[in-house]
Amino acid sequence: MKEVYLDHAATSPLDLQVFEAMKPYLTEDFGNPSSFHTPGKKGKDAMDQARETVAKILEARASEIIFTSGGTESDNLAILGAAWANQDQGKHIITTKFEHHAVLETIQYLEREQGFEVTYLTPDADGLITAEQVMAAMRPNTILVSIMYANNEIGTILPIAEIGKAIVKLRGEKARPVFHTDACQAPEYLDLSVEKLHVDLMTLNGGKIYGPKGVGVLYIRKGTKIKPIMHGGHQQKGLRPGTENVAGFVGMAKALEIAQKNKQKESARLVKLRDQLMAGIQKRVPKTYINGHAIKRLPNNVNLSFLDIEGEALVLYLDAQGIYASTGSACTSASLDPSHVIVATGRPFEEAHGSLRFSLGRSTTEADINYVLEKLPPLVEKLREISPVNLSK
Amino acid sequence: MKEVYLDHAATSPLDLQVFEAMKPYLTEDFGNPSSFHTPGKKGKDAMDQARETVAKILEARASEIIFTSGGTESDNLAILGAAWANQDQGKHIITTKFEHHAVLETIQYLEREQGFEVTYLTPDADGLITAEQVMAAMRPNTILVSIMYANNEIGTILPIAEIGKAIVKLRGEKARPVFHTDACQAPEYLDLSVEKLHVDLMTLNGGKIYGPKGVGVLYIRKGTKIKPIMHGGHQQKGLRPGTENVAGFVGMAKALEIAQKNKQKESARLVKLRDQLMAGIQKRVPKTYINGHAIKRLPNNVNLSFLDIEGEALVLYLDAQGIYASTGSACTSASLDPSHVIVATGRPFEEAHGSLRFSLGRSTTEADINYVLEKLPPLVEKLREISPVNLSK
Repeated sequence: MKEVYLDHAATSPLDLQVFEAMKPYLTEDFGNPSSFHTPGKKGKDAMDQARETVAKILEARASEIIFTSGGTESDNLAILGAAWANQDQGKHIITTKFEHHAVLETIQYLEREQGFEVTYLTPDADGLITAEQVMAAMRPNTILVSIMYANNEIGTILPIAEIGKAIVKLRGEKARPVFHTDACQAPEYLDLSVEKLHVDLMTLNGGKIYGPKGVGVLYIRKGTKIKPIMHGGHQQKGLRPGTENVAGFVGMAKALEIAQKNKQKESARLVKLRDQLMAGIQKRVPKTYINGHAIKRLPNNVNLSFLDIEGEALVLYLDAQGIYASTGSACTSASLDPSHVIVATGRPFEEAHGSLRFSLGRSTTEADINYVLEKLPPLVEKLREISPVNLSK
Repeated sequence: MKEVYLDHAATSPLDLQVFEAMKPYLTEDFGNPSSFHTPGKKGKDAMDQARETVAKILEARASEIIFTSGGTESDNLAILGAAWANQDQGKHIITTKFEHHAVLETIQYLEREQGFEVTYLTPDADGLITAEQVMAAMRPNTILVSIMYANNEIGTILPIAEIGKAIVKLRGEKARPVFHTDACQAPEYLDLSVEKLHVDLMTLNGGKIYGPKGVGVLYIRKGTKIKPIMHGGHQQKGLRPGTENVAGFVGMAKALEIAQKNKQKESARLVKLRDQLMAGIQKRVPKTYINGHAIKRLPNNVNLSFLDIEGEALVLYLDAQGIYASTGSACTSASLDPSHVIVATGRPFEEAHGSLRFSLGRSTTEADINYVLEKLPPLVEKLREISPVNLSK
């Protein structure tokens, strides 16, 4: 059976070049970078090189790059760390209603258990948040703003650079809140310059960009006050203790390098396939709505709501045809609640329930798109026939 | 030049069987275990199998095994998580003065910033802590006891089963404090049955047992009250959110399996080599003291103090001969303070400064030991000649 993996936003395969770059540090050069001997030094050199590579791509300094165990840890370190370090200046946080759960749950924890106040901005119907919205929410005691670069479910790209600029303009360099962005979905397609984005903290994740799972990055702008969330050895300036996963860091750097080198070409290629898939489905399947922005959208993201069906059921039907998609974030797939992202954009409950995400990737071809366009419509029709929620029958 | 790696306690090479077990999940079966489609299910099955394997070795239930990013995270989750979840019952913690920094710094953080009271038990000259010492420190408000299974620097094996039994006996099953042990140095040589050890929480680390770096385990006994230290998705019962590093988990399980299968044979082999090395150095180098216990000692650990020299200098001299050793924990190597472990055993400052650790491993041969016995004595002699701290000149 033909297999079409269209869930790259959940996780991507490891690029073989990345695997090759990691291999020596998995098998031969295994030294602990903190050891003073030759094997330790080899590990340290590789780690330092990986840090330099990441810094260069981000237009940052090597000392501003912290390696973590993934996107979730980077988000937690950014949010808890900045909140704890700056709470003497105020306890107000601004975020959005449709952040990834690693951001949302962490901020809700601060609100619920540690007396922080939070403004949750509502995106518009396309999933956009404006700089004006952020400015209107600002208070004298706002210490942290956390807004994602691109939404992982509906693919909308947010105006991070504009928001960052507006924050600096309003408050000046000294008294401004810390600005964090979760950029896990960005590296394949978008510019990661922290200078252009005007961010203080930025989360990246290896497992979403054809790099290793269990590795992430947190960019921390020099001068940003932040506290560690774990304690132990002196590694990574004490901000992230623990023996460094050298092979993982090398893989993360290589993955980021490949993603950024090819981002324009790959974006152009995928926008074409994405639009074919979106238009094709809309043409073939009635009562279908696109979620997310028509243009300000990740080149690999297609998210649709099919009225009168459950997204989960459609995922299983597609799976039986070798097509691998999702209803939204894998991180909340155990819950049968409708997507908080689609609900946040103001869609009614029924539409949110019938949402389906295809996330394209490097392996995606036009043949894959045609295969989906052939297989999907009859599956939707079949599900609608047997659906207990089919109100239009 | 001959190379003799004797720093296995800092980190060990990846076993090739472990690498082979991980490979499919690095390159082909990359699905996110939380995804509902076939690639996701393959990932989930591999993860579940890894969890079963670990549980069986620990004589635990699969639901009691949490995978983390390493020993440091496991220690932080154990200590912060248990302290936060149980603080309504009291805020007193018992630990020892010579824990690994991932334990010590975490407990000191709770003491410094969150109002916890801590009793730091002093080991005897051999590095032993007794169950009686722990019992004498117990207070009605003691909620957590954290004592390492085997010391990473001096190799002393602590009587965890006796301490665990005594805690249960004193307080009964219901009202007792949570008992945590950092067992990172144990799996190659010691029994890991959580039933026999009477522990509620146990930390393990892949990178110390010929498994992958960046992966650890925290065993959490059913019924133990614990809170997460990170927030996000539903993964691992919400106790450790984040997309699971399937290849890493598979590698961790395989590494633990190999270590435990060979532990008796490998212990017997290394005890012989260890004792040859210790006796040989003592015979050849005057003014040398063994740190740690003569018998209750990890089979791979040799730790000596050489009077009148700096351990760091000796590490560098040995490195030039292809012999890779350390002064103590790599996690604190950036500091030139004497080892807190050796100071805790009551050794004078001068001896702690001249400490050197050899940690043997699977690749260690008798020829390696003989090579060290040939190269080390003249290096010590040379260093003593030029030493500014040589008081006996």
